[in-house]
Amino acid sequence: MMDINPVRKYGVNKSMVQKGNISNGVKSKRIAILAPVAWRCPPRAYGAWETVASNITEGLVARGWKDVTLFATKESITSAKLAGFIERGYEEDKTQIPKVSECLHISKVMERADEFDLIHNNFDYLPLTYLSFIKTPMLTTIHGFSDEDIKRVYRDHKDTYYVSISDADRDSELPYLATVYNGIDLSNITYRDKGGDKLVCYGRIHPDKGYHLAIEVAQKSGIELVLAGIIQDQDYFDNLLKPHINDTSIKFIGQVNPVQRDALLKEAYAVVHLNTIPERFGLVLAESMAAGVPVIAMDLGSCREVIADKKTGFLVNNVDEAVEAVGKIDSIDRKKCREHVEESFTIDRMVEGYEKVYEEIFKREAQKQKDSAGR
Amino acid sequence: MMDINPVRKYGVNKSMVQKGNISNGVKSKRIAILAPVAWRCPPRAYGAWETVASNITEGLVARGWKDVTLFATKESITSAKLAGFIERGYEEDKTQIPKVSECLHISKVMERADEFDLIHNNFDYLPLTYLSFIKTPMLTTIHGFSDEDIKRVYRDHKDTYYVSISDADRDSELPYLATVYNGIDLSNITYRDKGGDKLVCYGRIHPDKGYHLAIEVAQKSGIELVLAGIIQDQDYFDNLLKPHINDTSIKFIGQVNPVQRDALLKEAYAVVHLNTIPERFGLVLAESMAAGVPVIAMDLGSCREVIADKKTGFLVNNVDEAVEAVGKIDSIDRKKCREHVEESFTIDRMVEGYEKVYEEIFKREAQKQKDSAGR
Repeated sequence: MMDINPVRKYGVNKSMVQKGNISNGVKSKRIAILAPVAWRCPPRAYGAWETVASNITEGLVARGWKDVTLFATKESITSAKLAGFIERGYEEDKTQIPKVSECLHISKVMERADEFDLIHNNFDYLPLTYLSFIKTPMLTTIHGFSDEDIKRVYRDHKDTYYVSISDADRDSELPYLATVYNGIDLSNITYRDKGGDKLVCYGRIHPDKGYHLAIEVAQKSGIELVLAGIIQDQDYFDNLLKPHINDTSIKFIGQVNPVQRDALLKEAYAVVHLNTIPERFGLVLAESMAAGVPVIAMDLGSCREVIADKKTGFLVNNVDEAVEAVGKIDSIDRKKCREHVEESFTIDRMVEGYEKVYEEIFKREAQKQKDSAGR
Repeated sequence: MMDINPVRKYGVNKSMVQKGNISNGVKSKRIAILAPVAWRCPPRAYGAWETVASNITEGLVARGWKDVTLFATKESITSAKLAGFIERGYEEDKTQIPKVSECLHISKVMERADEFDLIHNNFDYLPLTYLSFIKTPMLTTIHGFSDEDIKRVYRDHKDTYYVSISDADRDSELPYLATVYNGIDLSNITYRDKGGDKLVCYGRIHPDKGYHLAIEVAQKSGIELVLAGIIQDQDYFDNLLKPHINDTSIKFIGQVNPVQRDALLKEAYAVVHLNTIPERFGLVLAESMAAGVPVIAMDLGSCREVIADKKTGFLVNNVDEAVEAVGKIDSIDRKKCREHVEESFTIDRMVEGYEKVYEEIFKREAQKQKDSAGR
């Protein structure tokens, strides 16, 4: 099994990644978690970044952080303080122009920067362009480069703090403090000793996620397949998936919320995740394993960091290898899948990782202050 | 004829709109002109906001302003100082994500705010979200509300300076200093005493601009029509325009640069501009009249501010009235069309308008400083 320590050692003092409690003093620091405003926090169904931002917030509170503020849509739900300017997510209220809501939301956080000791940005690159104007340090978790071009903004801001969500999803020109893997909420996911009899492919319906390859695998294996997810690329769905969908061997059930996802995973013999581009993290992989469901994933990007090959699933390189893997699913110990997630991909492990990153940032900032006072 | 003073009196001391020279002291102030980065300044062909930003910049230099900096794409051309971060316009280099180039460009201006006495924003709403972080006053010319939703940003920033480009294109909730009409570069437009024999419709091909209505007018009048412009709505072009286009009665010649536009206006008997939504300003109207070409325009939005009805063209309410107007084109004195533009819509008139607005802003800012010193 690979090294799956949730906090990687890149650029970080070794002591940082050792276990041990953060002092209470640090836990009194004022933390602003900046979430996107596409969806509510936590999302009703889809909303990957909002899910993670919400999990970080709740995790910090659960671990005793005393002053946490979540900047999210006004209808968001949190046990931390909620600060919001945008009523509802722009994906849930299509009268909004996303850029309008984004820039208003982000600038409101920045205007209040002085009230916080750290801003933890989970909202992509736009917040970086306000960095010159605030004194508060900012940590940006890069949840993925949606396009090569957005790297221009990151590369223009190297004097700030970055975390990657997998070792695979790094830009070689950026300074990272650590990799902190995403943590998922296990209370939403039922572990089951016994699997179902279907192949399942879920997430967001986009060519990147290889739904069309999952269909091939099902057809070649002769096993029923259930597809689920939000349609992000209608042409892809209409042209490559829809012609294969029927009421028997290949079903499509639309978008699933956490409860429906749990029911879906109950039916799963294996989850097929044949991503066609490097995966950034792969929440689906962690969720499936948490339910005890082995995953067959393309060996691209972070998949080999999230799956323990041959122990919690199979890394494959093409459809034929995936078909072969379907035949070996019974060799996977479902209990091991769950344990693997419990060890590495829980909210608590993620927040533990972030705590250490925060502590490192406070240390560096204190040193900077000393240095500039000594001048 | 209506009052077409380029500086309106809304919220402005009356002395401000009186003629008279701006003092040399004021002309030494450091002005930053913030242009969009969709196209080069000045644009090679289409690029309405870049054209105006460029005209303001060149006009200020021509009128003796000593310290003007144009923030635009790096390949832009100006007699002022050029400051740029983005190499080429994102409409000319499609590898760029517009939002990435926009936020980088804008934040670079804001980071240098202290170097200027005034930032004149011609780049929509995003710059407003940096206002809290800069001390330099900003004047925003609202070149149009592309969507109702963008008003959220403006309405969230009422403690700044706004100019409208027509009285019609105002949001009732915003405080405006003045209306300053756009000015066009007459050196690019040849006045001709005698008109051509065609109807012309040009600008950007979008349902808002009523190209389909121009086709109806041409068909009912039995006069040849030439369509030109950048296609902004391909479906509209394909479905409503293309079926009518032929090589004889209804021609389409694509996008035109200033030289081609001049040649096009030479052929024009009248320009037909049957906008389906309120016009914000209507550069096309001013350009046509400058060439001596009467304009038939829908009486929506600013058209009645730009056209002198029955003197430089006709304001109409539907296709039938437009057809009727075609029959009366010979009653228009082409010389009057040109004179009307020379009086009201030249770069010099526009910049004169802005000079007065700038002066008013400096006065108000000085008063603010006095007030806060007196506290």
